[in-house]
Amino acid sequence: MLQEKPAYTLDAFHRGDFWLVQPKGAGHRAGVDAMMLAAAVPSTFAGRLADFGAGAGAAGLAVASRCPEASVILVENAPEMADFASLTLEHEHNTHLRSRACVLVADVTLTGRARERAGLADGGFDYVIMNPPFNAARDRPTPDALKQKAHVMEDGLFESWIRSAAAVTRPRGGLAVIARPVSLAPILAALAGRFGSAEILPVHARADTPAIRIVVRARRASRGALTLRPPLVLHDGPGDGFSARADAINNGKAALFGD
Amino acid sequence: MLQEKPAYTLDAFHRGDFWLVQPKGAGHRAGVDAMMLAAAVPSTFAGRLADFGAGAGAAGLAVASRCPEASVILVENAPEMADFASLTLEHEHNTHLRSRACVLVADVTLTGRARERAGLADGGFDYVIMNPPFNAARDRPTPDALKQKAHVMEDGLFESWIRSAAAVTRPRGGLAVIARPVSLAPILAALAGRFGSAEILPVHARADTPAIRIVVRARRASRGALTLRPPLVLHDGPGDGFSARADAINNGKAALFGD
Repeated sequence: MLQEKPAYTLDAFHRGDFWLVQPKGAGHRAGVDAMMLAAAVPSTFAGRLADFGAGAGAAGLAVASRCPEASVILVENAPEMADFASLTLEHEHNTHLRSRACVLVADVTLTGRARERAGLADGGFDYVIMNPPFNAARDRPTPDALKQKAHVMEDGLFESWIRSAAAVTRPRGGLAVIARPVSLAPILAALAGRFGSAEILPVHARADTPAIRIVVRARRASRGALTLRPPLVLHDGPGDGFSARADAINNGKAALFGD
Repeated sequence: MLQEKPAYTLDAFHRGDFWLVQPKGAGHRAGVDAMMLAAAVPSTFAGRLADFGAGAGAAGLAVASRCPEASVILVENAPEMADFASLTLEHEHNTHLRSRACVLVADVTLTGRARERAGLADGGFDYVIMNPPFNAARDRPTPDALKQKAHVMEDGLFESWIRSAAAVTRPRGGLAVIARPVSLAPILAALAGRFGSAEILPVHARADTPAIRIVVRARRASRGALTLRPPLVLHDGPGDGFSARADAINNGKAALFGD
């Protein structure tokens, strides 16, 4: 049925270990953000992981690719993006991951019984990762409606997403979030009383410029203190090439937090 | 009257540009934290600056030493520490700073009229710096009552200190705070609606270990977005010596935020 769908591209991740079917020139296209988010999950992770706002499935599949005992549920509310996630899972290049991945069309901001009925059971997951829609409208023009839908930040977005993550994560289970530094305060406010042992890892394009992203990890029902990790620097040479560490993380060869 | 006072030491800062009279082996002793906090103030700063929780005056005098058009008010609530601040100002090595510094014995957690009567007028300052008592009780033993008084973190400490800072700072005036990373969430919560354009600068003992301090700067009544600066690394060699940048900051030769 591809002729009825928007034009798509097929993009390799983790040096070809898995591929993504993505809308061509439209919507939010997965890239380094999704790979860094996935790299926040410990390499030894085993269990059920939910990828909130999964898009075409990049972050969740990157976890499945690196963690052989992980099973991932790609949770996406936009039907057009969930279709791409399904096409991604059906693709012949991803056969080896298919038994450990599925797509769930659901709104992660639902609450209570409605959330359970949508397929997100309380305490049903060992880990939640999320790459919520950034308000990149401030960063760059939004040439089409799909991209706008993915990028418009709503008030209370982190509160509602993290509230749901807390509900579906078992005690001592994990959470990882990638966001812009401007979202640090709402993220920490949303973690309070729900997740502890928070670890913040700043991501800088270059060593001497402000952070462009933060990755925040935390543990459900933990009382451990917040820590601030040394940053990841994406580019350390004169050109646009990745630093060795960023390249390893981007390709599923290293864990962002070293575990 | 020194014979009636606790034993004291006389310690050089900024390579001897000013000296501190401090209690010997008792109370909170000033050091690198105070110098980093002072270095957060732009080198071009001119105006009235309040040092909340000034102790013997290290951070405030470091600003006066580096910024020739700054006048500093050392605000300290513990009379025994305020006495040391006064002795510091009276000391012959600090004659050149005396006309631009004074001591105010006041509780910065006062509110409303009581705070004004204590000498902290609404909108009366161009900048506030603060090094609130850390709960270092968790970090190390507290061998005496003075140290305990300086180090016991109370619930809501950042809320009350930053609320007062907001009251006494003129619109577009500045705030700088040094704290442990664990205090990031209460600091950001206290800034909300009062200070904007927050800048967080993590301080790491070494490049590969978690941050030991954060320095947070913000601007009164600004709506600018939060930014996360590249970190300061204190030690980069095999020994305990400071990195060149940390040494320059510690000695008043460089600004922490580069301005």
